[in-house]
Amino acid sequence: MREIYLDNAATTPVDPAVAQVAVRVMEELYGNPSSLHKKGLEAQLLLEKAREQMADALGCQPEEVYFTSGATESNNIAIQGVFAAHRRRGNTLISTAVEHSSVRSPLQMLAQQQNANVVLVGPQPDGSIDPDQLCREVTGDTLLVSCNLVNSEVGAVCDLAAIARQAKKRNPKVLVHTDGVQAFGKVDFSLKKLGVDLASFSGHKFHAPKGIGVLYVKKGVRLQPLCYGGGQEKGLRPGTENVPLACAMGAAAAAAKEKLARHRAHYAALRAHFLEKAEQFPQLCINMPPDGAPNICNISVPGYRSETMIHFLAERGIYVSGGSACSKGADSHVLTAMGLPRNRIKSALRITFSPLNTLEDIDAFFDALVQGMNQITRSND
Amino acid sequence: MREIYLDNAATTPVDPAVAQVAVRVMEELYGNPSSLHKKGLEAQLLLEKAREQMADALGCQPEEVYFTSGATESNNIAIQGVFAAHRRRGNTLISTAVEHSSVRSPLQMLAQQQNANVVLVGPQPDGSIDPDQLCREVTGDTLLVSCNLVNSEVGAVCDLAAIARQAKKRNPKVLVHTDGVQAFGKVDFSLKKLGVDLASFSGHKFHAPKGIGVLYVKKGVRLQPLCYGGGQEKGLRPGTENVPLACAMGAAAAAAKEKLARHRAHYAALRAHFLEKAEQFPQLCINMPPDGAPNICNISVPGYRSETMIHFLAERGIYVSGGSACSKGADSHVLTAMGLPRNRIKSALRITFSPLNTLEDIDAFFDALVQGMNQITRSND
Repeated sequence: MREIYLDNAATTPVDPAVAQVAVRVMEELYGNPSSLHKKGLEAQLLLEKAREQMADALGCQPEEVYFTSGATESNNIAIQGVFAAHRRRGNTLISTAVEHSSVRSPLQMLAQQQNANVVLVGPQPDGSIDPDQLCREVTGDTLLVSCNLVNSEVGAVCDLAAIARQAKKRNPKVLVHTDGVQAFGKVDFSLKKLGVDLASFSGHKFHAPKGIGVLYVKKGVRLQPLCYGGGQEKGLRPGTENVPLACAMGAAAAAAKEKLARHRAHYAALRAHFLEKAEQFPQLCINMPPDGAPNICNISVPGYRSETMIHFLAERGIYVSGGSACSKGADSHVLTAMGLPRNRIKSALRITFSPLNTLEDIDAFFDALVQGMNQITRSND
Repeated sequence: MREIYLDNAATTPVDPAVAQVAVRVMEELYGNPSSLHKKGLEAQLLLEKAREQMADALGCQPEEVYFTSGATESNNIAIQGVFAAHRRRGNTLISTAVEHSSVRSPLQMLAQQQNANVVLVGPQPDGSIDPDQLCREVTGDTLLVSCNLVNSEVGAVCDLAAIARQAKKRNPKVLVHTDGVQAFGKVDFSLKKLGVDLASFSGHKFHAPKGIGVLYVKKGVRLQPLCYGGGQEKGLRPGTENVPLACAMGAAAAAAKEKLARHRAHYAALRAHFLEKAEQFPQLCINMPPDGAPNICNISVPGYRSETMIHFLAERGIYVSGGSACSKGADSHVLTAMGLPRNRIKSALRITFSPLNTLEDIDAFFDALVQGMNQITRSND
């Protein structure tokens, strides 16, 4: 059975050329960057090259790139790190009701355990965040504003430049963080131009391996680390550096940057075809905004529960999700915050593309979806 | 120039068969374990197989194995996690003066920032820890005892079973943690038999890749996590699981367990040859204990600074270290705590074996060392 993978916002297959970069470093260039001898220096130079590749792809300086184990760690270092380092000058953290669990959960923990004042701003009906509405919450007590660049479930793109500008106008000391995981390689941006202070990225969302991420920290921004040890990554993220996967991520980022325009055109064609097909079924509801990230589609088929449909499709080799993988099938907090009715939330499907997908993949998805609608017993949800 | 790598306690080359395990998961079995569809389930099963391999190799239950990004993170979760979760019943953390920086630094941070009472017990002159002396410090206020299983610089092996037994006799609620990074694959142990509650391991010390580690948490032991997010690893270590490297680590651990007796015999032969050669040079001082881990040698050549000799040897393709890689050339706190004279500390060399090393590698090391002693200008240190 041919597999059609349409869950690329959850994770992506690693590009074979990228995997080979990792393997070569694992087997041959395996030194510890902290070692004083040549094998150590060799590893350190590889790591710095990867850092430069990331900086070039993200639009920042290499010394502003910190390697982590992934975006969950990056988001936690950013949020917990700002709160611990700056809490003397304020107690308020502002975010949105449509963040990934790795932003929501540390905020919730700080509210519960450290009495942080966490303010969550709701989305507009299309899932996007209104910069004016968000920034009206910024006061002299605000330490941090954290808002995703692309929403992981419906693909709404945030006007982060406006948020950073307005937030800092209201309080010049406020720090702005973005979870950029779903944006890199899909949306054209530069961290410098966005004007944010902190940004999180994850390799496995753009064909690098799982287990490697980046935290961008604007020069001069002070954070308290979560871990303590040998001082690697300027003490912000100690531990022997993951040189093989950092090199893999650097290579994947360079490729993603180079091919961005081509990939975006490919995504746009897939999305247009998807919408054209979707229109043939009046019972389908479209949950993604018209101007969202081109690789993320989100629809509902009221009466057909997400989980049932996901399994039906998977039996036919077609892989989609109901929302964020990390929420493991719980009702989507994003669609809930958007105010969608219960039957649309219960039946949501997220279909997310990679450059490997074709128009035929979309046809196959809709063929199987129709089969599902014919064969699955409708639920009352 | 042939490379002779004798710095295996810093890091090891990845076994090509192990790297291929990672590659296959990266390219083909790339699902997100949290995804509801078949590709997610496939990844979850792989992860659980890796967990079983680790449990089997370490002598514990699979549900007691938590994957992390490496031993620095494992040590931090253990130490900070115990302190945060249990501080209501005490404030004292006991450790030794010869721990790795990823144990020392979080302890130091807790002392400075959270007023923890940190007690560090010194080693005996041979670098080993006297269980009686350590456990005399345990009181009703003690939360944690943390002691390495094998010292990373001189290879002293700790009688952890005695420490766990005696510590818990003095205070049944005390938790015992070990940094087992240098022990796995070199020393024959079972976590259950040691009787510890927490133990840290790192893949890249036994021919798995960098960027993957394990924290063993005995069933029933409560810890507070450092990161918050999607609830992976039962919430103790959230974030998309590093399935490829977990599988690689599982495969490397299974191989290390299977070959342990053979590897130990190989190390013992290398060590015996090393000591025989070393005895030919009366100016050499032996810094490792006679009953230490068989893969770690540590010597001094007073008058020849470590860094100078390391570079001299590296130019001849021979890679050794002065101590822990993570201390980046600073004076060894281990040798200092052992009370060695300054000229021995300044000239220490750590030579650490892997199963790939041969008797000829040791001959080549001593040949180059003699050349170094003839050519390098003696320092007054």
